[in-house]
Amino acid sequence: MIIAVDATGGEYAPHEIVKGAIKAAQEYKVDIALVGKKSILHVLAGRHLNKPGLNIVEASQTIELGESPLNAIRNKPDSSIVVGINMIKNGTASAFVSAGNSGAVVGATLLNLGKVKGLQRPALGSLLHINAAAPILLIDAGANADCRPSFLVQFAQLGTIYAKEILGISSPRVGLLSNGEEETKGNRLTQESHKLLRKTNLNFVGNLEGQDIPKRTVDIVVTDGFTGNIVIKTLEGLGDTFINLRQVGQLISSAYHLHGRALLYDVGLGSLVKRMDYREYGGSCLLGVNGNVIMAHGRSQSRAIKNAIGLAKQIVERGILQIIREESYE
Amino acid sequence: MIIAVDATGGEYAPHEIVKGAIKAAQEYKVDIALVGKKSILHVLAGRHLNKPGLNIVEASQTIELGESPLNAIRNKPDSSIVVGINMIKNGTASAFVSAGNSGAVVGATLLNLGKVKGLQRPALGSLLHINAAAPILLIDAGANADCRPSFLVQFAQLGTIYAKEILGISSPRVGLLSNGEEETKGNRLTQESHKLLRKTNLNFVGNLEGQDIPKRTVDIVVTDGFTGNIVIKTLEGLGDTFINLRQVGQLISSAYHLHGRALLYDVGLGSLVKRMDYREYGGSCLLGVNGNVIMAHGRSQSRAIKNAIGLAKQIVERGILQIIREESYE
Repeated sequence: MIIAVDATGGEYAPHEIVKGAIKAAQEYKVDIALVGKKSILHVLAGRHLNKPGLNIVEASQTIELGESPLNAIRNKPDSSIVVGINMIKNGTASAFVSAGNSGAVVGATLLNLGKVKGLQRPALGSLLHINAAAPILLIDAGANADCRPSFLVQFAQLGTIYAKEILGISSPRVGLLSNGEEETKGNRLTQESHKLLRKTNLNFVGNLEGQDIPKRTVDIVVTDGFTGNIVIKTLEGLGDTFINLRQVGQLISSAYHLHGRALLYDVGLGSLVKRMDYREYGGSCLLGVNGNVIMAHGRSQSRAIKNAIGLAKQIVERGILQIIREESYE
Repeated sequence: MIIAVDATGGEYAPHEIVKGAIKAAQEYKVDIALVGKKSILHVLAGRHLNKPGLNIVEASQTIELGESPLNAIRNKPDSSIVVGINMIKNGTASAFVSAGNSGAVVGATLLNLGKVKGLQRPALGSLLHINAAAPILLIDAGANADCRPSFLVQFAQLGTIYAKEILGISSPRVGLLSNGEEETKGNRLTQESHKLLRKTNLNFVGNLEGQDIPKRTVDIVVTDGFTGNIVIKTLEGLGDTFINLRQVGQLISSAYHLHGRALLYDVGLGSLVKRMDYREYGGSCLLGVNGNVIMAHGRSQSRAIKNAIGLAKQIVERGILQIIREESYE
């Protein structure tokens, strides 16, 4: 299995991407193709290039984070994103991981790989690691700002496949994010989506509200990409605020040796903060396209990149794309 | 100044409401009219009724939290919500505070007091106490699930008045909540709203994303009531998760006397958790209606009720309703 990794995308590229890729090659025993400028990557990857598992694929151009996606794809055919997506198309890679311009990744994927037959829109499935017990899947995390009710039903179908395979839940509970529990609550989109979801054979448990997300009353949170993106980023922002907790743990443990830290960890805070940190978890999967495309957080450092590559490996191994292709959509 | 308080609304009614009202009467030197069943309230308020500042106004009916708002208003004309709103209408109260059925409060307000001339929709302005330095105003926190761009412009105007008077900011920064910083990002609603907001003379600083809310890059977060409600409840749910922090503080302080607690408080965590707790802060103001109506959180206990009454007093004293009436709307 070869996983192509965008070496030039993201705020900490290329150093942290290369570091993460080297770690992943060692830990997961996968072959990694670092896509980017050979001259730079040769220096960064150095002696690791002599070992099996790590290769370089030349891409002379870079799409920056702020660039307009469609123009960038058109004007930079030799960018790491376009080259990486084309590696899936021509069969030289099983998956592509990028922390770069997310609009460009989605655009290049739709243009060069296309959607799975029967699907109206692809969606971004993102795992929220709030509770220590198990993550929740949020879909759509940002691929579609404006949605129709029928899109949300398909997101629920895609999410169900993903949660079954990646979270190992046999009948994942699907909740529709809304501003009230009752069926009659919500905006026009959720009211209509609720009616459609009731008619499916999914394990639809009804609406859920914002406060229910951390309580994990469902396995899958279905929402439009606008709301999903805002929810994830709000949680992330709060995570940043709480990152200080680590410093507290360190302060206490240095002041009182191991005791203070032990107390913090006893009540699960250490792991909670760790789990809300995109520096650790960074991989969202673009579901419903003809390829395995993983989007890592733009601020991913080596550990997040390593984890995103691990997720890519899992997605390939479980054959999620094939299962998605075999599903019949509402 | 008489502030009417719904004694039968909310999960902890009537006990906690009465306790909060008694505290508020003492602390803020306002006259409070407890609206509810006299027979019950007489027993609960007891000896405090002999002191100045606390009175009872009979309302024989109660609208439950789960009831359909419009039916409830129609069928229960002697409910605490309808009686309380009518006290504003006939001039016997300057403001009304309720932790009860929020749909019924909005409905009874629109039906009996109406909107301020020139406004398309009223909006719920909610103060987020995430940062210790100063709260942020989020508007609309849930009054309108489906919005037009012109509604959001008026919410920004209402929010600007409120932030000036209540937060004491001379030129509050207005941000539009979206899924990207750039003007071109967002759904159709925010893209169009962005263009309209640019044309106003408000201090509009552009889009903000979810992660910017805790960072307090703006003073006012403008959004539709669907998204606003979900953001607030997500923060609240996470607050619940972090309430454990208090227990950590207590554990550490009891184990190491005052030292551990001091460390926690030094980095601002104690106050951060306190500020995210709706048990402390519970008052959102329904802006743009002909009356001062404060909606407290349904799970408000005495301290939150006391604080909501304090907010009501402040709103009356600053004459916010008159300022809103004198504004000319886009």
